[in-house]
Amino acid sequence: MIHLPDPFPAFDWSSANTFSANALDRCSNLRTDPSFVARSFEDPRARLMLFYGDRVLVTDGDPPRPYLTGDALDAAADAATASIFLGVDPDGVPWFAADVIEAPSPALVASLVDLRTLALEGRAEPSVFGPAAQARAMLFWHHRNRFCGACGHPTELAAAGYQRNCPACGTQHFPRTDPVVIMLIADGDRALLGRQARFTPNMYTCLAGFMEPGETVEDAVRREVAEESGIRVGAIRYLASQPWPFPSNLMLGCLGEALSADITIDHNELEDCRWFDRDEVRAMLAGDHPAGLMTPMRIAIARSLIGAWVAG
Amino acid sequence: MIHLPDPFPAFDWSSANTFSANALDRCSNLRTDPSFVARSFEDPRARLMLFYGDRVLVTDGDPPRPYLTGDALDAAADAATASIFLGVDPDGVPWFAADVIEAPSPALVASLVDLRTLALEGRAEPSVFGPAAQARAMLFWHHRNRFCGACGHPTELAAAGYQRNCPACGTQHFPRTDPVVIMLIADGDRALLGRQARFTPNMYTCLAGFMEPGETVEDAVRREVAEESGIRVGAIRYLASQPWPFPSNLMLGCLGEALSADITIDHNELEDCRWFDRDEVRAMLAGDHPAGLMTPMRIAIARSLIGAWVAG
Repeated sequence: MIHLPDPFPAFDWSSANTFSANALDRCSNLRTDPSFVARSFEDPRARLMLFYGDRVLVTDGDPPRPYLTGDALDAAADAATASIFLGVDPDGVPWFAADVIEAPSPALVASLVDLRTLALEGRAEPSVFGPAAQARAMLFWHHRNRFCGACGHPTELAAAGYQRNCPACGTQHFPRTDPVVIMLIADGDRALLGRQARFTPNMYTCLAGFMEPGETVEDAVRREVAEESGIRVGAIRYLASQPWPFPSNLMLGCLGEALSADITIDHNELEDCRWFDRDEVRAMLAGDHPAGLMTPMRIAIARSLIGAWVAG
Repeated sequence: MIHLPDPFPAFDWSSANTFSANALDRCSNLRTDPSFVARSFEDPRARLMLFYGDRVLVTDGDPPRPYLTGDALDAAADAATASIFLGVDPDGVPWFAADVIEAPSPALVASLVDLRTLALEGRAEPSVFGPAAQARAMLFWHHRNRFCGACGHPTELAAAGYQRNCPACGTQHFPRTDPVVIMLIADGDRALLGRQARFTPNMYTCLAGFMEPGETVEDAVRREVAEESGIRVGAIRYLASQPWPFPSNLMLGCLGEALSADITIDHNELEDCRWFDRDEVRAMLAGDHPAGLMTPMRIAIARSLIGAWVAG
């Protein structure tokens, strides 16, 4: 029996998510050419995103810019660790990222903004969030791989930041991306939403969890939903993905059909989990729910999944 | 403008892939309970998959079994590193995995089989491949994380193998899964297939590549295809995923529509890349191509993608 695949989607849902649009050409075949990378860094238009932990330096201005250029770039580059090549934008401008390992000055600290706040504020140009997500994930990976996990020896940056090599045992280390499944589970005209105790009060969202070694996307959806809510899931459809730089996740957004109705909450994970009627979810999305219940912030892919389900 | 999502797929394509079916209940909420794990290991029906590098110990018999039980399990457990809890199967039998770090005896070596060979032989029960993929990915991760990447200190196994902690700096490390996009790109009635020089002669398959930090699944498909073939890709549909334990990849299988036709091969990556008519691909699948060209082995998700395109 042949099961024919569905037709192509009319719209790339992924492209509409915050942190998704990334117009940089990563020039991966040129990363190992030190002269290309050095020449790019010397480009007077070059941009450097400077991070301290999960926060990026944002310069004043309208719109605020989470990168440095010109003299400010040169000054920052001296104080930062070896920079990472992010790519070249459609105007031919090379983008780099670096982080400040030592304690930054109070003046620098005052200009640091975490990516979530920057995205929620909505003042920066949309084109900076994709590169910022790329930068944050890469820098976190470098921070976590300064020593070789196989032998404990200090590692060395290579390939313009896309590799770290161990000179002692020869192990090559590559950047890490952690796949996470996030899913809107529906039972006819109701959706399964939950909340963790640490969330904003009254906010309910899709269930989610890290994928584990040795499972498919679909089985990860079924396992996570069963663990957290006791609900069994049948058919599953992938809708969209999103880089989520907190610190280096790949959100795989799915819709799923419930095969059971009785919820058993895992209180280690969730404070609450319930079925919500479509009208109630519509009110939550619109911000006029009578009890003040809410869906997540616009930058989260959960919001897209919930919106897709309400619309469809 | 609202773009309605497609309906649910009638079939879970992922479930049909080798290494995908994994009936173990991972009991993730019990992993941190040492008495549960110890009790499970004492279960006389317990199974232990014993690895040496990428090969698993296979006992004689029909079907051959890539796990040990009873006295053989006890003897192996003494020689192996701390075991990892994989889960409990539908019969209530607990499964574990461990690896042999020191040089194994010649007798042991004679019974080691790599997972690819085991799957291609087709003699082992299908139910063992999911747990074997899980085991191999987990053990590779342990091997690569014996020291803390943040500070270089030796790490300690925790949570029955699903965590390694650094007693020096406190960093917690979690298992790694590397997402890879693999895609059948079509231009009407022709498909884009390529081959690397290291492949079996005459074998052509889908293009593929590791996802990078800060990109969506769809953008990773577009980037990899552009890099390797110069072809631009428009609409993309996710079809199925597959755990691919060589060593710890998550294959994300997609179909994509070509927006251009002229191929520019990246000869660092590919030996050849061409458009193939549907009839030619059908002959390759059936094994009666006049020039002896072939599609990949049945255990690869590429074969499913090619089959779906030929059928649809």
